[in-house]
Order: sequence, then C-alpha cells, then structure tokens
Amino acid sequence: MASIPAEFSLIYKHFRPLAGPGALDLGDDAAVFAPPPGRELVIAADAMVEGVHFLADDPPDLVARKLLRSNLSDLAAMGATPFGYLLTVSVRRDTPDAWFAGFAAGLAADQAEYAVALLGGDTTSTPGPASLSLTILGTVAPGTALRRNGARPGDGVWVSGTIGDGALGLLAATGRLADADGYLAGRYRLPQPRVALGQRLAGIATAAMDVSDGLVQDLGHLCRGSGVSATIEAAQVPLSPAARAAVAAEPELLARCLAGGDDYELLLAVPAARAGALREAAAACGVAVTQIGAFAAGAAEVTAIGPDKRPLALGARGWSHFD
Amino acid sequence: MASIPAEFSLIYKHFRPLAGPGALDLGDDAAVFAPPPGRELVIAADAMVEGVHFLADDPPDLVARKLLRSNLSDLAAMGATPFGYLLTVSVRRDTPDAWFAGFAAGLAADQAEYAVALLGGDTTSTPGPASLSLTILGTVAPGTALRRNGARPGDGVWVSGTIGDGALGLLAATGRLADADGYLAGRYRLPQPRVALGQRLAGIATAAMDVSDGLVQDLGHLCRGSGVSATIEAAQVPLSPAARAAVAAEPELLARCLAGGDDYELLLAVPAARAGALREAAAACGVAVTQIGAFAAGAAEVTAIGPDKRPLALGARGWSHFD
Repeated sequence: MASIPAEFSLIYKHFRPLAGPGALDLGDDAAVFAPPPGRELVIAADAMVEGVHFLADDPPDLVARKLLRSNLSDLAAMGATPFGYLLTVSVRRDTPDAWFAGFAAGLAADQAEYAVALLGGDTTSTPGPASLSLTILGTVAPGTALRRNGARPGDGVWVSGTIGDGALGLLAATGRLADADGYLAGRYRLPQPRVALGQRLAGIATAAMDVSDGLVQDLGHLCRGSGVSATIEAAQVPLSPAARAAVAAEPELLARCLAGGDDYELLLAVPAARAGALREAAAACGVAVTQIGAFAAGAAEVTAIGPDKRPLALGARGWSHFD
Repeated sequence: MASIPAEFSLIYKHFRPLAGPGALDLGDDAAVFAPPPGRELVIAADAMVEGVHFLADDPPDLVARKLLRSNLSDLAAMGATPFGYLLTVSVRRDTPDAWFAGFAAGLAADQAEYAVALLGGDTTSTPGPASLSLTILGTVAPGTALRRNGARPGDGVWVSGTIGDGALGLLAATGRLADADGYLAGRYRLPQPRVALGQRLAGIATAAMDVSDGLVQDLGHLCRGSGVSATIEAAQVPLSPAARAAVAAEPELLARCLAGGDDYELLLAVPAARAGALREAAAACGVAVTQIGAFAAGAAEVTAIGPDKRPLALGARGWSHFD
C-alpha cells in the first residue's frame, strides 16, 4: 500500500486489521505471495462511483460489501476460488472516521464470509464523488475456468437465483417503488455472488458470465462470445415474490427486470444432458437455478418472448412490443 | 473486464489492442493465467484523481503513462519484474474519443517500454473528476523482495536520480515557476520508475521504497518500518540542473524539493560495504545513485541538515529553520 498522508492515517488504522498473508501489514510498496502451486490465477477489477453505482447515503458497510461482492461475482462467473483483493479508495477529505469504520466493518464481515483478505491498495482524496476500485484474485484448476465462448446451439440458457431484484431495488432504494419489508432495496445494496455454485460448474456449464449489466444485454455478450443466438421466455425468468408482486401491479416493470442491472446472478449455457448435474450442484449450494430459454445457431441475436408469446424489443424508454 | 455499455464501446475499441496473454481479449469476466513457476508474485494498486494527481488539461497519453509508471515504481521498490496490469477508468460521459485514443496510446508506448500488458479492468462513468486506478503485477525470486524493514544503523541513505523535480514540476506545469525548456513539468508528468535498478538490488539494499510522497516523509516511513532513525544532508540531495537553478533563485524551494511528492525515485538503505556494488548496479542501468545520509539507532526520527549545517524542520507552510 502506498504511504498514507496524515489525514488518511485513520484509514490505515481501519484497513490494517484486514490485511492477509502477503500483505506485509500494508506497510510496504506491494504485497508478495507465493501463488498456490498447480493452480491458475484468475484476476478481475471493478470500480464503483458514488451516485452511479451506489447512493451517497448508502450505509458504508454495504457499499464496501457491494464493491467486494461485485468483484466476487466476476470470479464466480469464471468458476474461481477467491483468496484476496486490493482496494483503492478516493474520498473527500472531510469524510468522517465513522464512514471508514463502517466501510472496514463491511469488508471484515465479507472477508469472513468469503475467505478472502486484503492484500494492498491505495487511499487518496478527491474533490468529487467517492470513487472505489477493487481488484480480486482467485484460482482455478488449470484449464477449468468458465468462459463466455463455449455455448453451443441446443444448450439451455440458465440463470441462478432471481432476476430483476437489483433494478427494482434501485427504484425502491430511491423511493420510487413500494418495498414494505425492504427486500428489493436489500438485494440492490447487498448482492449475493454465486461463488460456491461457480466453483461446481466445471464440466457442467459450457459458458458462463455474471449478470451485472442486465440479463438481456449480458446474454447478448455471451452470445457474441460464443457465436450463437438465444431465445428466452420472459415468463420463465425467475422473479422473487417481491418482484413478482411489483410486476403484477405494474406490468411495465417486467422490462426493467430483464434489462436492468445489479443482479449478480450467474448466466449459464448448459447442455440438456447436464441439466441434472446443474440442479444437483445448485442444490448443494442452496441456490435455485432456472432454465429460461435455449441457444441456437445464428448471429448473436437475443430474442425475448413476452408473456403474450410475442417478441419484446428494447425501445428508447425500455421494453415494448414490436408493432 | 466487465461488459461495457454502448457509450463505452469506444473504450473497448481502444483498450482491446492492449490486452496481453491471459486477458482473454477483455471479453470475459476475468483474466486467467498460469503464474510463472518458481517465482513469487508481487502486486500493488495506486489510484490517481483528476485535479489531485494530474491536471485536467494534462495530455491523456501522459496521464496514462504516469498512472502506469507510478505503479511500476512500487514494483521497482520491491525489486520485482513487472508483467501485467489491470485498470479501472471512471470518466465523464462526454469524454471525447480522442481522450481515450490518447490514453490508450500512452499505455501502448509504456507497455512496449516496460514489457507489460493489460490483463483486464473496468470502465464506468462518473459525474465528477476522472478517477483512475491501476493494479500492477510482477514477480520476484522467492525471498528476494525488497522491504522497508531491513535498514540497520550505519547503513547509508541513498536515492536514485534527482529529487524535487516532481514538486517543482507541478509548480511549473501550473505556471507558478519558470521552466523554459519544460524539463521540470516533464518530470512531473512523466516519472521514470527505476524498474531495471530495482531488479538488481537484491543482496545490495537492506531496505527500499519509492519516493512518491516526498523524500522526508517517505524516509520517515522507511525508518518506522526498520525501527531506525536517519539523518540526511540537504546539500547532498541530488538536484537536477533545472531544480538547482530554481533553488538558487529562490532558496525556499529547497524545502519543497525535500518535502514534495511525485519523485518516483528509489530510496535505499545500503551498508557501506555494498556501496560499490550499488554504484555498479546503477551504472549498468544508466541511473545515478547518491548517498545523502546515514541511518542510526533511534526512534524513527528523520533529521535533515540544511545547507548552513543547522537542522531543518517542516513547519505548517513548509520547511523552516529551528529557532
């Protein structure tokens, strides 16, 4: 970790207890560690900006956990076992000690939950919105990393968990959608990366990615990566009870569930013969998996069939029927 | 690399050509690579914020190179050989294509110069100042990483290159100091990380770090890391001809040279018996090294002796004589 000016010694105080093996107590210019023998390394980085990826008044522990979990979700999508992370935090100079204490407490909670530790990073000031970046490291057995390029025509399109809670949760967290028990806002603020499931998918999924930018857009990425097309049925897309109730009251919200981001579920291509193995792997992790469509030959096109069996299309203001 | 919304496809266009082995063309959720056998991994992350670490009108290729080089400097300080990096870029939505093209061109130039390649990252929007974060990876032979904790009483305090150009260069770049040939501003905008020298210091330096936050402050960090004190002589601190001329015209600038940041030189503890080996290693890299003082027993105190042989002290508005 780069040396920290006096005004940031409070961060050092809060972050040092999070340091793992190799982090050298955050007292050197870099972390040093022996990579686990016989494994490949998997590494990804994601950034979050206040006002874009989280709300200014979101509790700092949840901001920290969302940052860590959005990165863990990338490792889950690769089938990797996480072990550590580096963190850069740029915040205003008047950020109170309590914010850092909460932020570090969130990291500590998730370090315990996901068996990862802080390896290093940097803290700086910014005159603008808080800007956070995290680099996550994990490992896989050589050659077993899940990729986006293996989906084949005939494979099923599967998702873990439920879709749309993140997008509806943002509406709820900003007071634009009723959310009596806070379930939706909670899903927006605290994703559940499918790390355990991801590690069981080698030999089952032919392609995988996480759903972070919206189901349909991400499915398009996977189709382009694999050179296939896909058709999904909106009615098959698993919704949480809270999302289902919201969509029942306001049917246009279905489009937001399919196109909105922040799901952090896994999107998988799975041959029919391995559907049973997938269900077993998911059951072992306590995660639901649902087939929502199928891949087919074709030029990376995604078709979503609406509840009325007609194709949906994304218009300028969201999804609408073709006319 | 996380998937990129449409408005950022231009970044993808610019960054994909920078992708190295393991980056999977930036088309997956993470990079996958086999760590070099028999080496330890060294990893560090540094952030830069527009208006804090670089100027809004700095050329984007130089911003990119400074970001990469400030991280390379951390690896140099550990004696590591760099091989790759991840990058997160948060910029305003109206950032023009030319900025990204210039930014990527700067990265490409330094990838060739330092034999590193892009492994992954993320691009997001921000309503505020551009916020950049880079995670650098390198390797060392096991057990040879340079640390801050090995300096012993009697070791010499050494620095590479010249000190103070970064701090004076910031003044020059912002029109507060004459800089006819642009040398000082150039040193501020484009550091020269001592990567080659760092790799030759195992067995020579007992402790090392890079000077990024100011010589005296960073020497204090090294003293605390090693449990020693240090005395340096301001008159021995190597200044570039441009810095020497500036200080001759305005003696108060000496304090700024000693306390200012952005040098990205190496600060070393070297036993007297190894001074020759250090000089040989530096000569082989074409880098100057200068002894500026010595470590002694004591409680992590840094004393800087002024040109008039009296101790200098950092006052609220910079350095001044004790009175």
